Amino acid sequence: MRNTQRGISPTSFFTDHYELTMVDAARKAGTATRRSVFELFARRLPAGRRYGVSAGQGRFLEGLENFRFDDEHLGFLSDHHVVSEDTLNWLAEYRFTGNIFAYAEGEPYFPNSPLMQVESTFQEAVILETYLLSVHNYDTAVASAASRMTMAAGGRPCIEMGSRRAHEEAAAAAARAAAIAGFDSTSNLAAGLRYGITTAGTAAHSFTLLHDDEQAAFEAQVAAMGNQTTLLVDTYNIEQGIRHAVDVAGPELAYVRIDSGDLLEEAHHARRLLDDLGNTNTGIVVTSDLDEYAIAGLRSAPVDSYGVGTQLVTGSGAPTASLVYKLTTRQDQHGNWIDVQKQAEGKSSRGGRKFAARRMHNDVATAEVVIADEQPAWDADHRPLLVQMVTDGEIDSRYTGAAAVTQAAAHHAETLAALPRDARRLQDGEPAIPTIFALH
Amino acid sequence: MRNTQRGISPTSFFTDHYELTMVDAARKAGTATRRSVFELFARRLPAGRRYGVSAGQGRFLEGLENFRFDDEHLGFLSDHHVVSEDTLNWLAEYRFTGNIFAYAEGEPYFPNSPLMQVESTFQEAVILETYLLSVHNYDTAVASAASRMTMAAGGRPCIEMGSRRAHEEAAAAAARAAAIAGFDSTSNLAAGLRYGITTAGTAAHSFTLLHDDEQAAFEAQVAAMGNQTTLLVDTYNIEQGIRHAVDVAGPELAYVRIDSGDLLEEAHHARRLLDDLGNTNTGIVVTSDLDEYAIAGLRSAPVDSYGVGTQLVTGSGAPTASLVYKLTTRQDQHGNWIDVQKQAEGKSSRGGRKFAARRMHNDVATAEVVIADEQPAWDADHRPLLVQMVTDGEIDSRYTGAAAVTQAAAHHAETLAALPRDARRLQDGEPAIPTIFALH
Repeated sequence: MRNTQRGISPTSFFTDHYELTMVDAARKAGTATRRSVFELFARRLPAGRRYGVSAGQGRFLEGLENFRFDDEHLGFLSDHHVVSEDTLNWLAEYRFTGNIFAYAEGEPYFPNSPLMQVESTFQEAVILETYLLSVHNYDTAVASAASRMTMAAGGRPCIEMGSRRAHEEAAAAAARAAAIAGFDSTSNLAAGLRYGITTAGTAAHSFTLLHDDEQAAFEAQVAAMGNQTTLLVDTYNIEQGIRHAVDVAGPELAYVRIDSGDLLEEAHHARRLLDDLGNTNTGIVVTSDLDEYAIAGLRSAPVDSYGVGTQLVTGSGAPTASLVYKLTTRQDQHGNWIDVQKQAEGKSSRGGRKFAARRMHNDVATAEVVIADEQPAWDADHRPLLVQMVTDGEIDSRYTGAAAVTQAAAHHAETLAALPRDARRLQDGEPAIPTIFALH
Repeated sequence: MRNTQRGISPTSFFTDHYELTMVDAARKAGTATRRSVFELFARRLPAGRRYGVSAGQGRFLEGLENFRFDDEHLGFLSDHHVVSEDTLNWLAEYRFTGNIFAYAEGEPYFPNSPLMQVESTFQEAVILETYLLSVHNYDTAVASAASRMTMAAGGRPCIEMGSRRAHEEAAAAAARAAAIAGFDSTSNLAAGLRYGITTAGTAAHSFTLLHDDEQAAFEAQVAAMGNQTTLLVDTYNIEQGIRHAVDVAGPELAYVRIDSGDLLEEAHHARRLLDDLGNTNTGIVVTSDLDEYAIAGLRSAPVDSYGVGTQLVTGSGAPTASLVYKLTTRQDQHGNWIDVQKQAEGKSSRGGRKFAARRMHNDVATAEVVIADEQPAWDADHRPLLVQMVTDGEIDSRYTGAAAVTQAAAHHAETLAALPRDARRLQDGEPAIPTIFALH
């Protein structure tokens, strides 16, 4: 698989053409080696959202390790006259040697939170733009939606099962982002292999339809998987399906799954029927185009687990986090730092290198504090948010691999719990805390 | 890169856990080798859309070639007790040996169009489900949105530049799907390398901000790229930017690009100013969160080219095509074919193997005709839609690789032109032609 430690493929060509032509032109102009800081941030959250969840850092760092140009890439760039010989030679040796600071993966974020800072020469930093944005925009979109879903589920386990509704590689990334935001397991085997996420699943309708009747299908499933399995009971008629399931699997059947109909009503019916049949310990899994609102709507239903697909992997209405990567400060020819920002209307950004902390009061967050240019001396009420993940090109292995996913999930749970109560409302509203561009 | 012919990685783990447990249980029950037909279709189009554009077939076939389980996969499945030893042995030898029929890539489609049929044993066909759906759901979503955009552009070239707003691998697939639906070029280098799509791009705001002033940036760009380039003129002030661009690049400057503000107004201003300055041949490229409606809104503006990003790669409101893959007919233990379908409410499908044709009248499509079970003798008014792409496991190379993309783009243009005029309305409405489940 592409992202496993061995056999990883180069990530350098997940890049826009113009990143390389900019490097080429800057090299000719003698400006390519000016020290620069690029920052990743969102100008706003998706409409109505109270917070976002930063994700993708680990995956980005794993890819950064292999952001290299091999002969195939260099041949393409040469054949298509994308860059000059000088730049080809530089690309052939490319290796990021700068520093990267970022929010911890799983951290809630708000408009203008400086989620990642890349500090290096212009040429080394600009060339990462497209890949860095792709990873963070997708993973953050999914983690942000996933967090609202697990919150709405109120402790009932959520299973990620949206692989089929996203690009195949995006699906694996979505499973990872969902795990960070509190999902219990995934259907996606690639995510299991790459990140150690628990995988789950038993059977689809086609399995039932393959067999001569529903009983035969359930018998085949129980024979192979035992009665600690989930039987899908809605291929023909849910009530009959439940009766068949209990007949075949007995009182120890782990779960029945319902994938259609009015889930609220069906869950109540199913619970009553299971109890009547003596299967009081058999749980109910519901799946069927769930989003955070549907999950919340099932709060009063006797549901034991939610399977979430389409809406998860498409960010529940916000399929990209709209993060941008902007040059905020760079040196001039004398080595002086010059803060820079685009000034055109509607897309302005703040120049200068940012420092950020979450202001806390009685263990509850009250503001995202962002300061430009000067590292403040944060007092005890401010939790600094940027951690160094790459030092002189050296990637800190604590932020990559399967262990990073587990750690990010714990960090997410902890930092989400410290947001004000308003953050946990699904209704449209303002960001849960304001972003303040000053310490006092 | 993963999808190039050499170095391609296995695709088998882009799969839901349950596909393998179903195979395992069916093998134990002796039902896994029943001949089966699975079909890919959409129950409906995204709300208001007049047609969809089928895409992903080529990419799926490229991945099918390498749908293999290697030691890493088998080790995972064994370690996690996903399937039994018998199934592990079968997976180790897995190779698809059946037949696949599909709509030509680029073909418009409608609710219940049978976009792909996989005919094989149950175990060989079911195991492809997740991967097949991931590829087609994403590529079809993008191609469907892209087609509306190129239609709205009315012949003005569209540049795909959404890579940063999608998962990095999805970005390359999006560029491919956009090319099929009439986009002229892409910013994505991976798509250039894999599929031979023309790549394009010059510079971003960061390049301007890297330099001491806008003139210095433009001089650096023109020195490297010549005056047949596109200068981005909205970093500080658009009017000043255009004056600087003309000063630096002269009357032969190819394009200026505007990425912010009221594009309609700015395009008119820019055109007048360029003309006043004598740059009557300098074109105007606009980019900035364009979708099909914004493109249509610029029809009267003096715009020469559109760069489209976020809305393209996220399917312009429909980030997945909601395609499903259903078992529609299978043999029983005696070899008789049994049509099957789920019967639960809201998600029913039609059993039986489908045959499909587009009914034409005076070169205009009037209906999508779908027949179950019996191959009809299509008359001259019916263009059959299903073509065989895989025969006894042998993939027809005409449907893969870069040449397939070019061919799909031509097929798309031709078949879209044959839809009734209503198909070309952006406003919400019904599918452009009805799907009829009978020949007469």
